Amino acid sequence: MAYVKDFKWKKGIKVSEYVDSLANIGFQSVQLANASNVFVKMKKNSAKIFLTFTSNMVTSGLRGFFAQLIQLKMADIIVTTVGGLEEDIMKAKGEKFSIGTFNTDDVELHEKGINRVGNLMINNESYMNFEDAILPILNKLYEKKKRWPVSEFFREIGLMLDDEDSILYQAAKNDVPIFCPAITDGAFGFHLYMFQQKHPDFIIDVIKDFGNILLSTNQDEKKGIIALGGSISKHHAILCTLLNGGAEYAVYMTTAHKTSGSMSGATTNEAKSWGKVKDESDIATVIGDVTIMFPLAMIKALEELKEDGLLKNG
Amino acid sequence: MAYVKDFKWKKGIKVSEYVDSLANIGFQSVQLANASNVFVKMKKNSAKIFLTFTSNMVTSGLRGFFAQLIQLKMADIIVTTVGGLEEDIMKAKGEKFSIGTFNTDDVELHEKGINRVGNLMINNESYMNFEDAILPILNKLYEKKKRWPVSEFFREIGLMLDDEDSILYQAAKNDVPIFCPAITDGAFGFHLYMFQQKHPDFIIDVIKDFGNILLSTNQDEKKGIIALGGSISKHHAILCTLLNGGAEYAVYMTTAHKTSGSMSGATTNEAKSWGKVKDESDIATVIGDVTIMFPLAMIKALEELKEDGLLKNG
Amino acid sequence: MAYVKDFKWKKGIKVSEYVDSLANIGFQSVQLANASNVFVKMKKNSAKIFLTFTSNMVTSGLRGFFAQLIQLKMADIIVTTVGGLEEDIMKAKGEKFSIGTFNTDDVELHEKGINRVGNLMINNESYMNFEDAILPILNKLYEKKKRWPVSEFFREIGLMLDDEDSILYQAAKNDVPIFCPAITDGAFGFHLYMFQQKHPDFIIDVIKDFGNILLSTNQDEKKGIIALGGSISKHHAILCTLLNGGAEYAVYMTTAHKTSGSMSGATTNEAKSWGKVKDESDIATVIGDVTIMFPLAMIKALEELKEDGLLKNG
Amino acid sequence: MAYVKDFKWKKGIKVSEYVDSLANIGFQSVQLANASNVFVKMKKNSAKIFLTFTSNMVTSGLRGFFAQLIQLKMADIIVTTVGGLEEDIMKAKGEKFSIGTFNTDDVELHEKGINRVGNLMINNESYMNFEDAILPILNKLYEKKKRWPVSEFFREIGLMLDDEDSILYQAAKNDVPIFCPAITDGAFGFHLYMFQQKHPDFIIDVIKDFGNILLSTNQDEKKGIIALGGSISKHHAILCTLLNGGAEYAVYMTTAHKTSGSMSGATTNEAKSWGKVKDESDIATVIGDVTIMFPLAMIKALEELKEDGLLKNG
Repeated sequence: MAYVKDFKWKKGIKVSEYVDSLANIGFQSVQLANASNVFVKMKKNSAKIFLTFTSNMVTSGLRGFFAQLIQLKMADIIVTTVGGLEEDIMKAKGEKFSIGTFNTDDVELHEKGINRVGNLMINNESYMNFEDAILPILNKLYEKKKRWPVSEFFREIGLMLDDEDSILYQAAKNDVPIFCPAITDGAFGFHLYMFQQKHPDFIIDVIKDFGNILLSTNQDEKKGIIALGGSISKHHAILCTLLNGGAEYAVYMTTAHKTSGSMSGATTNEAKSWGKVKDESDIATVIGDVTIMFPLAMIKALEELKEDGLLKNG
Repeated sequence: MAYVKDFKWKKGIKVSEYVDSLANIGFQSVQLANASNVFVKMKKNSAKIFLTFTSNMVTSGLRGFFAQLIQLKMADIIVTTVGGLEEDIMKAKGEKFSIGTFNTDDVELHEKGINRVGNLMINNESYMNFEDAILPILNKLYEKKKRWPVSEFFREIGLMLDDEDSILYQAAKNDVPIFCPAITDGAFGFHLYMFQQKHPDFIIDVIKDFGNILLSTNQDEKKGIIALGGSISKHHAILCTLLNGGAEYAVYMTTAHKTSGSMSGATTNEAKSWGKVKDESDIATVIGDVTIMFPLAMIKALEELKEDGLLKNG
Repeated sequence: MAYVKDFKWKKGIKVSEYVDSLANIGFQSVQLANASNVFVKMKKNSAKIFLTFTSNMVTSGLRGFFAQLIQLKMADIIVTTVGGLEEDIMKAKGEKFSIGTFNTDDVELHEKGINRVGNLMINNESYMNFEDAILPILNKLYEKKKRWPVSEFFREIGLMLDDEDSILYQAAKNDVPIFCPAITDGAFGFHLYMFQQKHPDFIIDVIKDFGNILLSTNQDEKKGIIALGGSISKHHAILCTLLNGGAEYAVYMTTAHKTSGSMSGATTNEAKSWGKVKDESDIATVIGDVTIMFPLAMIKALEELKEDGLLKNG
Repeated sequence: MAYVKDFKWKKGIKVSEYVDSLANIGFQSVQLANASNVFVKMKKNSAKIFLTFTSNMVTSGLRGFFAQLIQLKMADIIVTTVGGLEEDIMKAKGEKFSIGTFNTDDVELHEKGINRVGNLMINNESYMNFEDAILPILNKLYEKKKRWPVSEFFREIGLMLDDEDSILYQAAKNDVPIFCPAITDGAFGFHLYMFQQKHPDFIIDVIKDFGNILLSTNQDEKKGIIALGGSISKHHAILCTLLNGGAEYAVYMTTAHKTSGSMSGATTNEAKSWGKVKDESDIATVIGDVTIMFPLAMIKALEELKEDGLLKNG
């Protein structure tokens, strides 16, 4: 049995030592330490790892960390929303997002052409530059073929980028597919629509891409899910593992609670009733802000996996 | 200036009287009373009303209320996720969902073939019956045409149902389009995929459907948003109003908080920075469980609108 | 087994009908309907009812409702914090609190002498008038005796007030004791301190008052807890029931979640491990804003209890 | 202006480097990095530092960290609830608390004599041993004097303990007063009551102790507040700074949100309207689990303060 241990600061303490201590503090710290262990187990046991995150996390500085995890092969399959992929492209093209506060005069921001995501700020200009970047890309892809499953579409875009910190770039380079079940739910929706107006035979084939995610793993393979935040990203990944016999490992990190019955707040336990994760799986649900907790838990896992030589390009 | 007033129970108090009182209690009760007023204003001023909700709300008994709101023309455009539409079909076909508790033995549920959504339960059988119902529908639609925008696809399904309490049925009957930006993120994804395997020219055209939502309103029309919960449903509706000059009215009801920077927790104020709602718009953000709060606020509005003869079929 | 039922609006719907419907909607609506039933049961079975609330609820318009519940004998014992009792006195003396918004310029408010509690506002003047009111009261009490258990102290104050909507007034009039385990944690702390400087033999006897709450019930009596919000009010009541063999009925309503291990978020289930509530007790935990949910659940119970002639003065 | 920066893992990363990175990630990570800076500023500017925490944090392994902070003089005044002080004594006497899960069979735990606090477990035995320990202490204190202000009472107990990791021990040894505005709200309440039954002249003087906290600082001194969680601990400390002209520095860390109008969720901004913190103060509100976030933010501050020789005994 584990016991509560008094935490004490030692000068120069490393993140990995800190996460070790969390296992004996209590409440969500225990959950976070568990999550870190599940990360290690899914990699050590060669599970196919699904990493899902929401758009706002790509707005944040987690974007480069996600790219790094893809590079290190700590993620085999990405599921996310289109807004994040748009911002990944913006950043790859040099756009900068600034840091403000949660309490601001939003009318004033609007007048200045600044769009707020919590305490982060995106300029209208970044969206305009995105538009300029995306049109030639659509033309090139259309020349190649007319009917694009979503993940293949984003893979091609990734190959056209040149930024080590880009999710799309690293995913394309490392053969990690990116699934995005609602590709029109962002600026992309508008640009694709305008393009299709001129090229009516241009098609995004979402059905075909469901086949792609379904066949990205199988019943025999061990499967792990790292779901950051909620939304369709989380749901789509666990739907895929459900159809492939359930995941052996699952970590959910979110600020949502189970009490509203939402997907965002659904726990790893609830997932068992569906067979989304296996009855005897290793699971952890951690409640809190992903920007603080996810790197903590993952760093600890990376340090251990690095020791064991289990990280690619690491 | 409004003042706090002591609430007192009177025997036989009506919901509308209760919501009136809430305006002078405090905290979220004030927000809820505001929301009710914004509902009235958007209807009185003939705004095009976007109603968005998440799948779990259709799992719940709100489903029939949504259908009723469509019938009364309190909603002109629906945006939701595919899971809810699947469950709407199941219920229209006679499936029953049972009520349990949030704390259960999920492994035991799994063995019994019961899937849990918070404290609600869906049998595996309901999914099997759904499969049986959906295949002939796909065949019929395929005979009509090969390439379906999502909202047209669901309209056809609605026309095949026969249930006054069905969202799809009432929407089809009352010419209210249902947009669903991630149609493959559910059982539908699997069935569509299997169908396309046999009929490779069968296409769901998500790009075309973006045009449909974009053109469902315009810059000149007044626009109102009622966003229940978060997710892409909420985001997709406000993206559409953003591209049409911003909404004049907006009510967000959610359990999510703005502090994580998520779309689910994004407030009506944050929306102003983007131009998603207009600077001088009537807005209310209410924090709490939609199953309790939304009917409360809407009932009060319906009673007032009924008096004024502003409800269709009412 | 209970099933999900589609909710439908009927013109003129009463609160009691609405709460009936909630039992078949889902998520927190089911919890709220359960809570309402537990209220009925605790009264029908003649349980000694502990009602606890936090200070901000007295800032709100719930204050008059609490007074009414005391008058109706739906509460036999009150536990609360001192801030609320101060505001009850202010309101009894005619002070008005105004309604503002959660997002304000707090520096500007400070300059205007306005103190903010969420979206409610208290003027500095109200605190000054409170001071003027409280000093003669302290003098009178000191003349009676020098050593005051907290609940006896507040009972005397209640007898000096003249406001049907006052918690202190109704409690004194109906022999309902008010326990307040941290009497110095508010403006009272300062005024009592200044008074004791002049009268060093003036004592507030908190130990004696622990005896008073302990003996306010016993092992044989049935006990019910209605804990609104968290804090020491909730803890103190359940500590008392724990020492008296555990409660048979318990309803917790709060916005706090169990995931942080806090008392505010502790559930009625957790209470079983302590014996705070009995193993076989009737319990409900409802998550959400008390200003909306508590009157809803209680109104439904009052209507039923009124029918059965179980309300005093009702 | 600060910009979002991509976070990248480097092997062997230290906690202080990690917290530096958080300043450029986004959402609560930015708040946490701010909080860390405010900790540094309050110490560098010789503010009188109030540290407040709730009982469950002492149940957790933060207890030893709080003791260490007292020893290092990062806290000049402690405000907390009595349950935590009881558990500090239990731990000082050798009791061990174990780690379990949030989802357990609470009836089974009750039968085993195990009391649950979130995912932490306290045996009934620990409470019995506490009783055995406390009675001789009460006798000794009673021999010294009959009338005890709370903080003096706990100081004496601290002097009788012998555990470097004890909050009471370090506080007594380092002349840091511990204020506890509701001393009877725990097992202490019962033991003090039983003791007073035998010794009616035994008095806990809470009014006198209000004077002690009021005079623990003054208008001229700079003041800082570190409020972990909510409850009367937080309120009592800010009440004291309010009466002394307002704090120059304030960090609130909590899982509660401002939307319910509760003290637990009240922000550092709201505090400005009251004058609890000064208009131009350095403030940060961080939302999330204290067991993970507080050590993170504080470790970074300690490392910097250590470099500058500003930590006592460090």
